[in-house]
Amino acid sequence: MRIAAIVAYDGTDFAGFQRQAAERTVQGVLEEQLTALYGAAVTVSGAGRTDAGVHAAGQVIAVTVPETVPAERLPEALNGLLPADLAVRRSWRAADGFDPRREATARVYRYTLAQDRTRHPLRDRYATRVEPGLNVAAMQAASERLVGEHDFGSFCCDNGQTGSTRRTLYAVRWAAVEERLTLELVGDSFLYKQVRCIMGGLLAVGRGRFPAELIERMVRGEPRPVQVAVAPPTGLVLERVWYEAVEATERA
Amino acid sequence: MRIAAIVAYDGTDFAGFQRQAAERTVQGVLEEQLTALYGAAVTVSGAGRTDAGVHAAGQVIAVTVPETVPAERLPEALNGLLPADLAVRRSWRAADGFDPRREATARVYRYTLAQDRTRHPLRDRYATRVEPGLNVAAMQAASERLVGEHDFGSFCCDNGQTGSTRRTLYAVRWAAVEERLTLELVGDSFLYKQVRCIMGGLLAVGRGRFPAELIERMVRGEPRPVQVAVAPPTGLVLERVWYEAVEATERA
Repeated sequence: MRIAAIVAYDGTDFAGFQRQAAERTVQGVLEEQLTALYGAAVTVSGAGRTDAGVHAAGQVIAVTVPETVPAERLPEALNGLLPADLAVRRSWRAADGFDPRREATARVYRYTLAQDRTRHPLRDRYATRVEPGLNVAAMQAASERLVGEHDFGSFCCDNGQTGSTRRTLYAVRWAAVEERLTLELVGDSFLYKQVRCIMGGLLAVGRGRFPAELIERMVRGEPRPVQVAVAPPTGLVLERVWYEAVEATERA
Repeated sequence: MRIAAIVAYDGTDFAGFQRQAAERTVQGVLEEQLTALYGAAVTVSGAGRTDAGVHAAGQVIAVTVPETVPAERLPEALNGLLPADLAVRRSWRAADGFDPRREATARVYRYTLAQDRTRHPLRDRYATRVEPGLNVAAMQAASERLVGEHDFGSFCCDNGQTGSTRRTLYAVRWAAVEERLTLELVGDSFLYKQVRCIMGGLLAVGRGRFPAELIERMVRGEPRPVQVAVAPPTGLVLERVWYEAVEATERA
């Protein structure tokens, strides 16, 4: 049967989601322990291939497995075998062909900045530390320009990207939580490192190194200036993945 | 000169604040790196002896050191030598005899509960996971009974406690943050494991295993029933330590 599940992980010690020989990856660890649990090789499909160091609160995966464990009991069956930085939070029976990546209608990513002069061990694990004094208003205004359907090719860091780089960003939402500043992005799908390129551009604006029009120019197709760095993975969390309806994936 | 500093740490991999032979402790790591920095033995005094696994966002320490580094530059000088789970956040010159423990007027602790059926790697590091369905209203009502000056001896887990067990709890503040429930306690000082004993008692009430009067009876001096467990350290953070005024410790 096909089981879909919501998976959370602390990306710090993973070389990303996607399986790689000789690297500790989320897919690799999941497949290893699922194979141990079922006594047969299990392949994991994921909704998003998060990069090395990127975290997830709501990654969605799917697996085809024997019917030995009730679909909704995967957390109890598997979490004891998984390391502390990876857990299955919920699972359910999905339609046989359910593909969590192709069928996803939207992804929600959150990037957290900590405006702090010094390290803060209780916060730095899930935030990117930046110097205080950012022009937050300029960053917020520039980010509005990203909303809509655009060619985000200038915000893609993968030279090997094939196919269209047009994507739709449905919403940007800023929030201040204690001394942290978070940017939530909702989009149909995201190019390789797109969120980190967007944050890199916004930081260049917030630091006054580029005018707010940088974002406008990149949306229009001008390449990202080499001085605009890709923001680090530490502050990035894949929060949720959306689908048409639970009914589309859940099978009674 | 005497330097005071605010220190933050992730307590997960520390055997508590206080130096112990052959254990990794906050005081031990700080003294080791301060001694390396100054080329002379340095002793660290701390405001609170947090237990193994307890975190701190605002522990206060003081050290007497040579005048080779300006007092306010300790974060830049020391943080590069400290491990990722420990950092100095701010420092200033203090009066020569400044004792961060004896001179503290109040401590602020925060305990975070995550009401969750499954592990959550992005949250579990700084929260104690409990089963959903707690009677939060009963816990909140019972906690009000703790405010004021009382003999907290029944909330102390140290058989070797000497001296008075009377303490003043100035305030309890509850807050819901996403799916987490936090209890902030402000008190003049706290007995060994007092916050964890308080949370243990409140959880016994919230789970319906004891009536709300449990807290009332313990405040009146009845011993803690053996069925009431001490809550784990994971969810506990020493948030801040207060003093009469910055003027009392900061020296121009």
